[in-house]
Amino acid sequence: MIGIFDSGIGGLTVVKEVLKHLPEYQMVYFGDTARTPYGNKSKSTIIKYAIQDTKFLLDKGAKIIIVACNSASAVAAEELKRQFEGVPIFEVITPAVNKAVAVTKNKRLGVIGTRATTSSNVYQDKIKQHQNGYTIISKACPLFVPLAEEGWTDKPVTKMVAKKYLYHLKLQNIDTLILGCTHYPLLKEIIQIKMGKQVTLVDPAEEVAQEIKKYLAKNKEIEKKLAKNSNHEFYFSDIAPHLTELAHKWLGQIITPIQFNL
Amino acid sequence: MIGIFDSGIGGLTVVKEVLKHLPEYQMVYFGDTARTPYGNKSKSTIIKYAIQDTKFLLDKGAKIIIVACNSASAVAAEELKRQFEGVPIFEVITPAVNKAVAVTKNKRLGVIGTRATTSSNVYQDKIKQHQNGYTIISKACPLFVPLAEEGWTDKPVTKMVAKKYLYHLKLQNIDTLILGCTHYPLLKEIIQIKMGKQVTLVDPAEEVAQEIKKYLAKNKEIEKKLAKNSNHEFYFSDIAPHLTELAHKWLGQIITPIQFNL
Repeated sequence: MIGIFDSGIGGLTVVKEVLKHLPEYQMVYFGDTARTPYGNKSKSTIIKYAIQDTKFLLDKGAKIIIVACNSASAVAAEELKRQFEGVPIFEVITPAVNKAVAVTKNKRLGVIGTRATTSSNVYQDKIKQHQNGYTIISKACPLFVPLAEEGWTDKPVTKMVAKKYLYHLKLQNIDTLILGCTHYPLLKEIIQIKMGKQVTLVDPAEEVAQEIKKYLAKNKEIEKKLAKNSNHEFYFSDIAPHLTELAHKWLGQIITPIQFNL
Repeated sequence: MIGIFDSGIGGLTVVKEVLKHLPEYQMVYFGDTARTPYGNKSKSTIIKYAIQDTKFLLDKGAKIIIVACNSASAVAAEELKRQFEGVPIFEVITPAVNKAVAVTKNKRLGVIGTRATTSSNVYQDKIKQHQNGYTIISKACPLFVPLAEEGWTDKPVTKMVAKKYLYHLKLQNIDTLILGCTHYPLLKEIIQIKMGKQVTLVDPAEEVAQEIKKYLAKNKEIEKKLAKNSNHEFYFSDIAPHLTELAHKWLGQIITPIQFNL
């Protein structure tokens, strides 16, 4: 199975891309809705939770792990790779950075995400590993998550919030913008309008799915271990009434959430 | 000590009222920031967390407990009173309802809060215990919390969100509105403007502080047990960089947060 974990329901945007690009494999999802969000928590707490989430997915039979949550990818991925040596662990930052670096023409990149992601500087650090000469401007957009969860993806108030958050990035003449939070692809249209057509939006969910596709083509011994069926399992540490409705709306299919306390 | 717990930092608005109305007593606060917010979690999860929070405060020496969080007050207070018999446990719902019922003239009341609070119908049920004939209109306002935490308490976007959320309540000709979430007093001004001067806003934080004042005047044996000094203790299950700054802004004084994992 392909294991995917997230701080909550936002990781379903990653599930959607995995279903699109890797439709043959069985998936197991864990959303830590009892402790969501991770984005406003400290580094040590996020690492602790990410280790628990990974253990849970491995116990369920996952052979590869996707860290869907940007906050966890930003602060916990290195520690996960250390603790679970031998398990292929994919995070959403690296593939997004590779894409952004490949498409930018003026080397001026923007990154939006939660406070944990933007203040960790992980995108900046990864981009600078490629080569120098990139200018990276980041901006935390904490209201985008509750706006997406309200379903206000095309409301005037969302446009106003987007304008407020993206104003500075627009002034900085960036040509590429990384959507550094799982919820943000849900606001893609408004973000694209506010940034203008000349700016390429990079969706880490799509990039990580593509990266795993390439990885599995090269690593047949791992690929063989993955179950091929569509009996996907969706676990959540808390099931609130709103969950199934949002999952349906975002994923375009009805899921049967299973409660599991970590 | 007076023990106060909340799902996070919102309960500091209750601390503020307790400091104002009961300045002589030592306080111990626990904010469950590692698992915040409670408002989007299920009833059984909120009860589990509320029991852990209460135990923690009692271990620290609290002799009375205030449940600052409306979501926990709504779904967990009865269970807490059962499990911790003999400990005076105060929640924020009852005093707010008593006040609202006392001030309304047209018996048309509004309640705003998180999804957990409004969908629990606890305010409706408590109001109806007084007598029949009240009309109660409730509305979940999930964006008010992140707007308050952004510090956007007087921004146009907050006015727009307030207008959107409060429109229906305004049409319903209510004359009293309960601010059923700890963060909402921070947006009191905008809410008052949008609702109009004719609507009385009820702040549960103020009402619970007043209720405890009356309780202690009558229950001297409990009053005697409370330490009288200003060495207040502030515990949080997670300390993010943003916390101290927000606490200072909301409380008007600098606190030294202590990390404690439940």
